[in-house]
Amino acid sequence: MSEENKEPVSVEQAQDVADQSVVNPWEVTGIVDYGKLIERFGSTPIDDALIARFEKVTGKPAHIWIRRGLFFSHRDLNEVLDKVEQGKPFYLYTGRGPSSDALHFGHLVPFVFTKYLQDAFNVPLVIQMTDDEKFLWKNITLEDCARYTRENAKDIIAIGFDINKTFIFSNLEYVGTMYPNILRIQKCVTGNQVSGIFGFGGSDNIGKHSFPAIQAAPSFSNSFPHIFGDRVDIPCLIPCAIDQDPYFRMTRDVAPRLGYLKPALVHSKFFPALQGYQTKMSASSTDSAVFLTDTREQIKTKINQAFSGGRDTAELQRQFGANLEVDVPYRYLTFFLEDDEKLKDIGDKYASGKMLTGEVKKILIDLLVDMVQRHQEARAAVTEDIVTAFLTPRKLAF
Amino acid sequence: MSEENKEPVSVEQAQDVADQSVVNPWEVTGIVDYGKLIERFGSTPIDDALIARFEKVTGKPAHIWIRRGLFFSHRDLNEVLDKVEQGKPFYLYTGRGPSSDALHFGHLVPFVFTKYLQDAFNVPLVIQMTDDEKFLWKNITLEDCARYTRENAKDIIAIGFDINKTFIFSNLEYVGTMYPNILRIQKCVTGNQVSGIFGFGGSDNIGKHSFPAIQAAPSFSNSFPHIFGDRVDIPCLIPCAIDQDPYFRMTRDVAPRLGYLKPALVHSKFFPALQGYQTKMSASSTDSAVFLTDTREQIKTKINQAFSGGRDTAELQRQFGANLEVDVPYRYLTFFLEDDEKLKDIGDKYASGKMLTGEVKKILIDLLVDMVQRHQEARAAVTEDIVTAFLTPRKLAF
Repeated sequence: MSEENKEPVSVEQAQDVADQSVVNPWEVTGIVDYGKLIERFGSTPIDDALIARFEKVTGKPAHIWIRRGLFFSHRDLNEVLDKVEQGKPFYLYTGRGPSSDALHFGHLVPFVFTKYLQDAFNVPLVIQMTDDEKFLWKNITLEDCARYTRENAKDIIAIGFDINKTFIFSNLEYVGTMYPNILRIQKCVTGNQVSGIFGFGGSDNIGKHSFPAIQAAPSFSNSFPHIFGDRVDIPCLIPCAIDQDPYFRMTRDVAPRLGYLKPALVHSKFFPALQGYQTKMSASSTDSAVFLTDTREQIKTKINQAFSGGRDTAELQRQFGANLEVDVPYRYLTFFLEDDEKLKDIGDKYASGKMLTGEVKKILIDLLVDMVQRHQEARAAVTEDIVTAFLTPRKLAF
Repeated sequence: MSEENKEPVSVEQAQDVADQSVVNPWEVTGIVDYGKLIERFGSTPIDDALIARFEKVTGKPAHIWIRRGLFFSHRDLNEVLDKVEQGKPFYLYTGRGPSSDALHFGHLVPFVFTKYLQDAFNVPLVIQMTDDEKFLWKNITLEDCARYTRENAKDIIAIGFDINKTFIFSNLEYVGTMYPNILRIQKCVTGNQVSGIFGFGGSDNIGKHSFPAIQAAPSFSNSFPHIFGDRVDIPCLIPCAIDQDPYFRMTRDVAPRLGYLKPALVHSKFFPALQGYQTKMSASSTDSAVFLTDTREQIKTKINQAFSGGRDTAELQRQFGANLEVDVPYRYLTFFLEDDEKLKDIGDKYASGKMLTGEVKKILIDLLVDMVQRHQEARAAVTEDIVTAFLTPRKLAF
């Protein structure tokens, strides 16, 4: 999966002159109107009734990111809950495009949420590292892509996934096993279709043209014979940022033609860049992101420079209060401050002027520094042997 | 590798209104002027000087198919002979598109010639079974493609390849190992380029667009780590019919950009269909071909119906003689009657009217029946275990 990059201009862009936003796997620009995005993509909002059903089926409170609307859209999540109620299995699939050594906080979002889902449902999880995609799109050697896969896998494992239920795979190593499904998908999709969905053109390399089949293949359970044998009746739920949806619209279009189940999806909003809530955090622009390797000083400097919805002076702030909507530090707190009451209290006080920007930033800095420290400790315990174990095809408990 | 099929119309067609022939991996139609084809493709004729050098380097007489001009064109064969003289290694690469259970006599040509080259040079050989290609282009299930690979492999093994020097591989099984090279090649080739070389359009599936990289990859020695490790300095010689040349023009264009050696080639003419020397024998048209599974009766019927250059009556034939140029049975004899003197004698007598069509056909029928019988005996000795052994990645002697 990908989150950076520029070319090619997607047809999504052409389709959406109205709200000026571009959302595709390689580019997120403009001010994203998530309501409009749901309409444009044809997905379904996660509403209160679905959240209530989710809590009833899992017997647990919904994740804060569902309740706070950060995971805001889905496809066929109800069908997955039906299966759970029927006592039938499903599995989770998510991924990462390993384009550098270090992850930033935005990268955590799908994985933290996926771990929550894995724990809530006790189901197997497959994680695709699209090192092949990064090679095809970026100026990176294959050797570096393979190294990034292992380094990023350490960060992912550090989040706490259960090795008995989790298979992480590098496309560079695993593509052969998925090849029958990749071919079946490729045979169903024309050059015109990938041009339409992803905006590929004649000057794009041929690897890009066929890559969507490689991201689609893990949506079908028989792509993992060591886990599911040749079964094709085990549905897949994909937690991902909304920019990955085009891959899975294509996948869902292809599935019935192959006699396969359509994967279900839950979509997150984008994790905002430091420079402003309408920009997505990017690993290729180090200034736009807080990394899981940043020091306290780096985090402090970055957060203090982050785009604020507070007023220019303490006096004005006390008088008029902050605009939470555009305040990046407050947005980050909505992602990572788990205590609902504390978050509400900060929001109320900050919006009403009882709290200053510096105080909010201080709370966030302490929170992020603490998270980085805990993450680095957990990551340090992830040995090369553990990475190899997670990357080894094997049976999973399900 | 492929030899049947229709769509898509190649640019070769557009380029060659002059001689009306179409020659690409999926279509050979029209009357092929091989001299013009060499000009069009930019290859080099195999001339007497090269044949003499070939015999000097190998210390053996050139194969009858070289001497008789059936292998008529090459790229960089001199460079391969240079390596041999320097005592440096090279390897052979050829292939087969397994689109049905049974091979015909035309399919034997590249393999019989390749075996001759393997024996003459004592070098390793890799044989690609493009079951993935057949799935993408034809209405065949993956399961059948995989089965055809093993069935066709039995015929290939029956030709007598040395298991210590020969690796046969199914793309369905082996693509993962070649994936790094496949990606490197894909990254160098644009959609526009495969449209230009192969005629693919927007309505072709995306698997077709990226497939040329899969046929290209075995041209580079590091695609076979179990044989050559990570060495990229071992040149490759590809014996194939001239219709496969577009793949390797593309490969030779890409090679220097990857720091790899360009593969060398030797090209054969097409094995003619029973209906006429200007049509290529095709496995999808059972009437056009003599199969290695045909009975004596089937062979007799087919050859007796084959297009003849003889006269309509015995009297006219005795008076005017046959036109050897268009006579399909005589053409087949030039492929399979090894005895030069006997062939010349038949040719002289048939052309001058001393021999009748029926007599020539009888000689051919006996020859083919004998070949089929010997082939079937050899094939019957090829067990499933032997097939599996040939298909297993392992070290080869070189």
